[in-house]
Amino acid sequence: MTEDGTDRTVPGYRDTTALDLRSGTPVRDVPSPSPAVAGAPVHETTAIDRGAVPPPPATAEPVPLRSVEQHLDEILTAVPQPDPIELAVLDAQGLLCAEEVVSQRALPAFDQAALDGYAARALDVEGATPAEPAHLSVVGETVAGPSGPASIGPGMAQKVAAGAMLPAGADVVVPVVWTDGGMATVAVHAGPLAGTYVRRAGDDVAPGTTAVQVGTPIGPAQISLLAAVGRDRVQVRPRPRVAVLSAGSELVEISTPPGPGQVVDVNSYALAAAARDAGAEAYRWGVLPAEPRRLSEVLESQLLRSDLVLVAGTFASEGDPVQEALAALGPMQFSQLTMHPGPVQAFGRLGPDSVPVICVPGEPVAALVAFEVFVRPAIRMMLGKRQLFRRTVQAIAAERLLSPLGYRQYLHGQVMRHPDGGYVVEPLGDGGEAMLARMARANCLIVIDEDVTEVAAGGLVTVMPLLLGG
Amino acid sequence: MTEDGTDRTVPGYRDTTALDLRSGTPVRDVPSPSPAVAGAPVHETTAIDRGAVPPPPATAEPVPLRSVEQHLDEILTAVPQPDPIELAVLDAQGLLCAEEVVSQRALPAFDQAALDGYAARALDVEGATPAEPAHLSVVGETVAGPSGPASIGPGMAQKVAAGAMLPAGADVVVPVVWTDGGMATVAVHAGPLAGTYVRRAGDDVAPGTTAVQVGTPIGPAQISLLAAVGRDRVQVRPRPRVAVLSAGSELVEISTPPGPGQVVDVNSYALAAAARDAGAEAYRWGVLPAEPRRLSEVLESQLLRSDLVLVAGTFASEGDPVQEALAALGPMQFSQLTMHPGPVQAFGRLGPDSVPVICVPGEPVAALVAFEVFVRPAIRMMLGKRQLFRRTVQAIAAERLLSPLGYRQYLHGQVMRHPDGGYVVEPLGDGGEAMLARMARANCLIVIDEDVTEVAAGGLVTVMPLLLGG
Repeated sequence: MTEDGTDRTVPGYRDTTALDLRSGTPVRDVPSPSPAVAGAPVHETTAIDRGAVPPPPATAEPVPLRSVEQHLDEILTAVPQPDPIELAVLDAQGLLCAEEVVSQRALPAFDQAALDGYAARALDVEGATPAEPAHLSVVGETVAGPSGPASIGPGMAQKVAAGAMLPAGADVVVPVVWTDGGMATVAVHAGPLAGTYVRRAGDDVAPGTTAVQVGTPIGPAQISLLAAVGRDRVQVRPRPRVAVLSAGSELVEISTPPGPGQVVDVNSYALAAAARDAGAEAYRWGVLPAEPRRLSEVLESQLLRSDLVLVAGTFASEGDPVQEALAALGPMQFSQLTMHPGPVQAFGRLGPDSVPVICVPGEPVAALVAFEVFVRPAIRMMLGKRQLFRRTVQAIAAERLLSPLGYRQYLHGQVMRHPDGGYVVEPLGDGGEAMLARMARANCLIVIDEDVTEVAAGGLVTVMPLLLGG
Repeated sequence: MTEDGTDRTVPGYRDTTALDLRSGTPVRDVPSPSPAVAGAPVHETTAIDRGAVPPPPATAEPVPLRSVEQHLDEILTAVPQPDPIELAVLDAQGLLCAEEVVSQRALPAFDQAALDGYAARALDVEGATPAEPAHLSVVGETVAGPSGPASIGPGMAQKVAAGAMLPAGADVVVPVVWTDGGMATVAVHAGPLAGTYVRRAGDDVAPGTTAVQVGTPIGPAQISLLAAVGRDRVQVRPRPRVAVLSAGSELVEISTPPGPGQVVDVNSYALAAAARDAGAEAYRWGVLPAEPRRLSEVLESQLLRSDLVLVAGTFASEGDPVQEALAALGPMQFSQLTMHPGPVQAFGRLGPDSVPVICVPGEPVAALVAFEVFVRPAIRMMLGKRQLFRRTVQAIAAERLLSPLGYRQYLHGQVMRHPDGGYVVEPLGDGGEAMLARMARANCLIVIDEDVTEVAAGGLVTVMPLLLGG
């Protein structure tokens, strides 16, 4: 096999079991091949594992080879945006506004005092100083709240609380500290210009102006604004409904102690949690039934009720019943990706409504990596978000990192701030630690590009922090 | 009044309406005091507003003066942590684990192949090379899934898929690429050491070891691990139940067009959204009734059902019915804080269960600032989070910022990355824009400390980015 793939036996296909024959050293926990065969390049297959994920299995059926970018592009191009729906403002929290919210009201609705003081006529206080105060008759007091019409004439003032309606005739509010605080008459020590400390009707939002624009994420401040203009419901981009299913004859439900050869269905839980974290309304269906007719029924019913269907499974063997059931529902493209871990991935739009279906590997670590790389951006696109991808940072690798040529590798790591600025990342997994436990300790994915086979300790590497909500 | 407050008329009290007499220039939208009084320092009161929030109102009753830190300390010291509860693992998402989860199971539960290949005895393949392969009889095939007992003897191999049970007698898996891929007999081209590509029972998690520790935030990776060890429920720190109430005779429900002097209840919506964003289970009660008996009933019933009660209101006037109703339920301390906006804040533990009650200002911008400063850390403490406060960054001020001496000021701003590294922050609000709309455009709070009165354009200032979930 050459780097340009000219000796591929099937066009577009490359046996990825041989992907790691070129670079690297054996990982610590896997015994090295015996010295007798140390010269054989095939033995360096262990190199890229780092104890984490075995090389991709040789599949019986060659599947097309494609890059991470190609697969992601296909998904993001094909994923539809669900139609906007109207929700109560509190239910709209975290979603994107899907309408131009124009205020029918003025905010504030009436001229009001901006602070506690005396509503007065600017003319009456013009030129007042502490030495030569203006004296006004206090004709009443208004606090915030519903109030009838009030007015003042020349030489009069009304005591007002912040937020209280301004009496007709008044055009200025003199703060208490600029007066002697008098009750029957007040001595005013300053002559502010007309309009000072007055909030005019519509100053905040004028009727007919846009309060919240299309595409604005709705948070507490937007809810505040929507409520203020009298909107208790708002059109938003809805949370996509994501059904999460697991496939595999080895799977048993979480409450069933696994028998010989069986493993607990981990992925439907983990992927439902990840989908919810990404903003979806996730529905965990669980383990797909083995019986072909029932299997098809489940898939069809999930296509009817979902905006996106997510299936985790191995899909490696010939005659896989899930692959066959999916194929019967529409064009489903299984691909061998130039990606580590989890090279076998699939995408299609199935059923009468062409609902997007994404298949991710069954191995739990590979499943969550695939979720990060392909599913999370798709869910964010369905939510209408502009920023589909997690922010990445460049970090200093604390250890040497190895990666197979031609493959994009994702490693779990712990990224931390460097005392001198910037970031340092430590790959997780010295091989002696559990795969799932290692993933649970990670706070980032280290991304090593296709054309990089080695990052020296101290070299820069791309890191994708995995921040969860809260 | 002097800086050290020696001329306070009441001990611990300082008339905060005069807080801004020392520094600054008038804001753009508020007319300057007339030239006739330009020399009077009182006129510079307009300086700190920046069009955003008027100086704190003079209250009829002097209330104690305290710092932001003092008030926050009192709240965080008094806030209890709700008892752990057991939830289904998917409902535990985003919460902190409150138990030491010890695995009763081994992961994997059985010795298994780490990749597709041939299970064999290391002795039989020792020293094999492509030139001198070892020939083995293939006695069967095992795929992933439930399987009965199988075994191999000397000179035998079994074809195995990744995840399949290893037959008894086998101690190595030879990857397909290291063989001729034979079906009846297989020629093995390498002699890996015993244990190569074998995942032993318990390698991932051994029985009796801790899978998830107390205090671990539960995300998709932890849910994956919990499911793998057979846990469908887990003890967590629960979301605190937060009741959100608004107080004020001027308030009407969102669906009611406000009459003269009335305003829509914005805070119960905005604060419920903020509480939920902070991780609470928020319950929006709405506007408190005016009738004293009914008011007390509502407060009492909310104390019974909540871990924290949040009340937004102005609380400035004498004989405020809400203040009186609160006082009847326990010690409620109203304080004048050295804080802008929203100096009047309160905290107490009321009712038979001493439920914490936090009062924040009624002005919607000040209410959400107070939420950020006092309520969000309290909710995070109740959730058991170690990190109570938002991360702050230092940013270059794009404009000159003014702040009253002795007061900590919070300004809404927009922070962005500087092309040369670091951050730049622009204060929001040229005065011509709505207060609520300005807050809705902000992505950070600018925090100006008590002893700072001016930050020059280009100077460094502390910024608290307001990230929402997703």
